[in-house]
Amino acid sequence: MKLVECVPNFSEGRRPEVLDAIVGAMTAVDGVRLLDREMDADHNRAVVTIVGEPEAVLEGVFRGMAKAAEVIDLTTHEGEHPRMGATDVVPFVPVKGVTMDDCVELARRLGERVGKELEIPVFLYESACTRPERQNLAKVRKGQFEGLCEEIGTNPAKEPDFGPNRIHPTAGATAVGARPFLVAYNINLGTTDLSVAKAIAKAIRHSSGGLRHVKAMGFAIKDRNIVQVSINMVNFKGTPLFRVFEMVRSEAERYGVPVIGSEVVGLVPVDALVDCAEFYLRLENFQRDQVLENRLSEDGSDE
Amino acid sequence: MKLVECVPNFSEGRRPEVLDAIVGAMTAVDGVRLLDREMDADHNRAVVTIVGEPEAVLEGVFRGMAKAAEVIDLTTHEGEHPRMGATDVVPFVPVKGVTMDDCVELARRLGERVGKELEIPVFLYESACTRPERQNLAKVRKGQFEGLCEEIGTNPAKEPDFGPNRIHPTAGATAVGARPFLVAYNINLGTTDLSVAKAIAKAIRHSSGGLRHVKAMGFAIKDRNIVQVSINMVNFKGTPLFRVFEMVRSEAERYGVPVIGSEVVGLVPVDALVDCAEFYLRLENFQRDQVLENRLSEDGSDE
Repeated sequence: MKLVECVPNFSEGRRPEVLDAIVGAMTAVDGVRLLDREMDADHNRAVVTIVGEPEAVLEGVFRGMAKAAEVIDLTTHEGEHPRMGATDVVPFVPVKGVTMDDCVELARRLGERVGKELEIPVFLYESACTRPERQNLAKVRKGQFEGLCEEIGTNPAKEPDFGPNRIHPTAGATAVGARPFLVAYNINLGTTDLSVAKAIAKAIRHSSGGLRHVKAMGFAIKDRNIVQVSINMVNFKGTPLFRVFEMVRSEAERYGVPVIGSEVVGLVPVDALVDCAEFYLRLENFQRDQVLENRLSEDGSDE
Repeated sequence: MKLVECVPNFSEGRRPEVLDAIVGAMTAVDGVRLLDREMDADHNRAVVTIVGEPEAVLEGVFRGMAKAAEVIDLTTHEGEHPRMGATDVVPFVPVKGVTMDDCVELARRLGERVGKELEIPVFLYESACTRPERQNLAKVRKGQFEGLCEEIGTNPAKEPDFGPNRIHPTAGATAVGARPFLVAYNINLGTTDLSVAKAIAKAIRHSSGGLRHVKAMGFAIKDRNIVQVSINMVNFKGTPLFRVFEMVRSEAERYGVPVIGSEVVGLVPVDALVDCAEFYLRLENFQRDQVLENRLSEDGSDE
């Protein structure tokens, strides 16, 4: 069985009945499973996670976008989070038996259909991008809905990959892309000194010379009297969890600070954890089909 | 979905066509998946691993035993491995959504049916045993086919749990039981000194004062010029892999010997590896439903 995840972000964080309608449109497609839905009133934004076979997910997210275009009006939308569309961003994520290239293909097919049938301009981003400057979502979304109303159709740099070369009057524009599974991973340090967490975050993150697929910030966890290095592992295969953990431990030692624990926020693919067992147990010649559950699902897919 | 594994051992290690017939009888049952089959000519014994929903596995292994009773004759059987029946031993192993008690119940139901329909005496062993002295398979099988021909029916200690109180003239007797998943796990040491591996094996195994669910022996791996502590983890939940690894590392240090690697032989349940990631990453509040694949299979079972 092939599995792809899709995490559409919708510009609605205050009216649960509106999100219900959007989610209902997606899960009405046979084979689409809802993994998670979160609304944030301050951001006025919802993040929905669905998973299933590629064709089912493609159809489901299209229907969700069509519904969002009906029920969300960007001209009256306010919220802290940057946004440019009713459906703001749609990443496809390979989960099982699916490559990043497959997800790029899904992003293109979705973008083409959304452009034609919903008349919403679509920008491809991250692994699906057609211009290097569109890899970074923040750059694609720069100007937000209000700014893009003027820029699309006049600024050649803002010509969409699919759909009309003008913004949709109420549904705005959407970024569609493909990216690896994102693991939210925090490491807790036995000190109240926030500067230690900030220094370690700076040491390990890509932007300031650290590990390629790591984003990190330092925070105080006041009710526990500790500090935390809060990490986005944007590609856990490229930069594995154990390497981040060991680097944080080594940097913390330099300050005489112990690592007292770590935590996974939300979901983590089992491979990210098996990679850690393989590292720490120094496993030789370990094949992933030695994992009983993998063998079972392989057999299942033969039927 | 509930999954149970069953690992019947048959007294046939030389005629592949005989094992084909037995395996074919088992896999003819809808829902029975063959995970592994191994024949050993010296032992004149085959080990077959099947998995599936409890009722399917129960039916499958019964048919395999019926076929084995047809095609194997213990009166002419020779081999190095101790044995007492055409089907010698049948352990049920909980894999998913199934408890040890469920497997004990399966063992009893199978034993009752085999006793009645095949007229083979059945002894319950390990977690399914009805007498403490029958927990240990080696004690149940003591005397083997030849000895039990005389003992069953005369020695009250050899009265079977199910079936006639006399041996089956050609199919002998069978031990049926329930046990945890067995993980074969070896740890390699950077020395040629076999006495180090033997001393460490002695230190960690239950029989000589070590960890409760560990069996271990020391071996030389001559082609690599190293030695190995070869371990049977008979209950990886009770005694986890990381604890064994760390104990071997600590004991090896006392001899100035490094642990150069470890290896899993055959299959390992993913939980045994996730336990290791949780230990080494010092994960706080980690729930197994945070593993993406677990979430997917839960959702699947709701359908």
